[in-house]
Amino acid sequence: MQPNTYLQQMKDGYLFTEIVHRTKAFQTEHPEAKILRLGVGDITRPLPAPVVEAMHRAVEEMGHPDTFRGYGLENGYAWLRQAILDNDYTPRGIQLSIDEVFISDGAGSDLGNLSELFDQHNQVAIIDPAYPAYEDTSMMAGRSIEYLPCTAENHFVPDLPKTSADIIYLCYPNNPIGTVLTRDQLTEWVRYAQAHKSIIIFDSAYEAFIQSPDIPHSIYEIEGAQEVAIEVRSYSKTAGFTGVRCGYTIVPKATGLHAMWLRRQCTKYNGTSYISQRGALASYTQEGKAAIRANIAYYQETAQVLMKGLSALGYEVYGGVHAPYIWCRVPKGYTSWSFFTYLLSTYQVVCTPGAGFGAAGEGYVRFSAFSKREDCIEAIQRIQKL
Amino acid sequence: MQPNTYLQQMKDGYLFTEIVHRTKAFQTEHPEAKILRLGVGDITRPLPAPVVEAMHRAVEEMGHPDTFRGYGLENGYAWLRQAILDNDYTPRGIQLSIDEVFISDGAGSDLGNLSELFDQHNQVAIIDPAYPAYEDTSMMAGRSIEYLPCTAENHFVPDLPKTSADIIYLCYPNNPIGTVLTRDQLTEWVRYAQAHKSIIIFDSAYEAFIQSPDIPHSIYEIEGAQEVAIEVRSYSKTAGFTGVRCGYTIVPKATGLHAMWLRRQCTKYNGTSYISQRGALASYTQEGKAAIRANIAYYQETAQVLMKGLSALGYEVYGGVHAPYIWCRVPKGYTSWSFFTYLLSTYQVVCTPGAGFGAAGEGYVRFSAFSKREDCIEAIQRIQKL
Repeated sequence: MQPNTYLQQMKDGYLFTEIVHRTKAFQTEHPEAKILRLGVGDITRPLPAPVVEAMHRAVEEMGHPDTFRGYGLENGYAWLRQAILDNDYTPRGIQLSIDEVFISDGAGSDLGNLSELFDQHNQVAIIDPAYPAYEDTSMMAGRSIEYLPCTAENHFVPDLPKTSADIIYLCYPNNPIGTVLTRDQLTEWVRYAQAHKSIIIFDSAYEAFIQSPDIPHSIYEIEGAQEVAIEVRSYSKTAGFTGVRCGYTIVPKATGLHAMWLRRQCTKYNGTSYISQRGALASYTQEGKAAIRANIAYYQETAQVLMKGLSALGYEVYGGVHAPYIWCRVPKGYTSWSFFTYLLSTYQVVCTPGAGFGAAGEGYVRFSAFSKREDCIEAIQRIQKL
Repeated sequence: MQPNTYLQQMKDGYLFTEIVHRTKAFQTEHPEAKILRLGVGDITRPLPAPVVEAMHRAVEEMGHPDTFRGYGLENGYAWLRQAILDNDYTPRGIQLSIDEVFISDGAGSDLGNLSELFDQHNQVAIIDPAYPAYEDTSMMAGRSIEYLPCTAENHFVPDLPKTSADIIYLCYPNNPIGTVLTRDQLTEWVRYAQAHKSIIIFDSAYEAFIQSPDIPHSIYEIEGAQEVAIEVRSYSKTAGFTGVRCGYTIVPKATGLHAMWLRRQCTKYNGTSYISQRGALASYTQEGKAAIRANIAYYQETAQVLMKGLSALGYEVYGGVHAPYIWCRVPKGYTSWSFFTYLLSTYQVVCTPGAGFGAAGEGYVRFSAFSKREDCIEAIQRIQKL
């Protein structure tokens, strides 16, 4: 048996595992230290009450012969797919058919598995820095990658690829930088993909954080995007589903990839938990929406605490308005990892080193507004002025 | 962008979708017909009470800030992995370490995704007939396949491969035939894999149906198997999780594939629902085990109803003792699909045509003991003696 050498050659360390490891080591050496974790992008607010109630009802149904549900459709229950169209797309003037919506156990799985739609010999373009799965997934498939650096020098707006990119990963609002693309900027990408017959994988897991009407929530707000874009979304950062697992992916028929994705999912996926899907549906009720808006507003305020606090301390910060992430330039003389170590050892504050998101992330660290509010306030009090 | 041509060339029709489609068409033409569905392998008994209670508790925890859980480990909570070792392996004398257990959202996903561990240029051996995912997954990866026919003529025991097989899919107790391998027969496969440096993907989703102490529940009961075998299991057919989604896969370090699978899962999977994992844990409590034993016994009795009934009607039947499936030879002059049509149109009974599981399944149909008991009894009454 020959192993997949691309997978075999992957480096071991996953960014967040490394952070957990270093934090733990510090805690062991300093058991008295109260460590403030402002790094990881996991949410901290519990599930909204209407979601909890819907999931209780679903669990109860599963215990009775007349209401028990076995296998559902691989692409999800029609009532959830219809709710997605009615709430997330139709109000923005986007017409999709219900079978273009695929429910999944989360954006993480889909962003990884979508890679199977493509031949190995495709050129990939990835914004640098980025969520590590785009790069890792492409490397596991043996594809060559062009990195599109985003730094303060180009105002964090990536240039179009220099190579002819076949597969383009875009994440907006962006993780880790916290920036967004305007309608005109996103239109440029759609036009590029049309001209080069490329496909855009658009990760819009953070769209609920957008505060301005000028910024598109979905790539399908751009005319022609249904021919060239797959959109991946998640209930993780809206309804708080990081531990519940539910998301969805739109594969329009106009991409020519719809039948392939359906075949892939029917063969390698047996559908999403009925309980998770009922929870996701409840996030679209009036009460569910109100609870999610309140949660998002809370995280947005936390972002402001971090932005204003770090600014006042003399730090250069970006993002944090239409996204839960604050991108902070490290002081002169530090790398992102040495600044991580400095913050941890001096103030017992954990951030995420930008270099973990790619070469262009060097010189920055990420703070997360999903962190506990009181920890953010205390961190700002602990950290000394530059 | 170049699509994955292997995936693109896959035929559309998934077996069970086709059956649903034909059954629906018949019902539309004959709205008065009471159709008895004895085909699909989905379970019909509700979740055991201890599982329902555990899931209610988990849902409740998710609604409160102090007990809320976000992302779990990609390979699952340690308490569930430990319970698997303590209940499914240690009592059978199998020593595994807790990090060799990977919790997933079900055997279907793992059986598909494990394919990524291997280079394209591996020779695959698949028992024919078989659960369609082994073949489909291998074809999507562009691998060549040797089929190992199992028919009444070889007593449904597959010969060892004639080619040098690199990847071998074995499913015991078998779906669709319902047969098992003895300890000696399974040992032959492990020795073959050791001699040829191949890897066995052992699907033991139906092990709970085994009634004889001579038949191994796990491939790791065979000495040396940890070097050559990955084992995939599911809570679907034991605890009734087809709609809940939870399973697990054992990737021993001795296979040399452990680090690769961990890397794959950490990159392309974000963990299994906390609620599903709590439900799975409850299946190992004393009450949970008793409820599962009662469910399995019920399905085993249903299998006897079908076996004895079909036998008495003059049909040649196999399996059905250590497995929930009955493999039935079709009468002379019929193909498996024409017999499917005959049963549906004459008696309004739905079975699964054997040809849907592979070429060697031609001439047989599968009946499922997961079907409703009263439907099985009625079907036996409706079908005329051969």
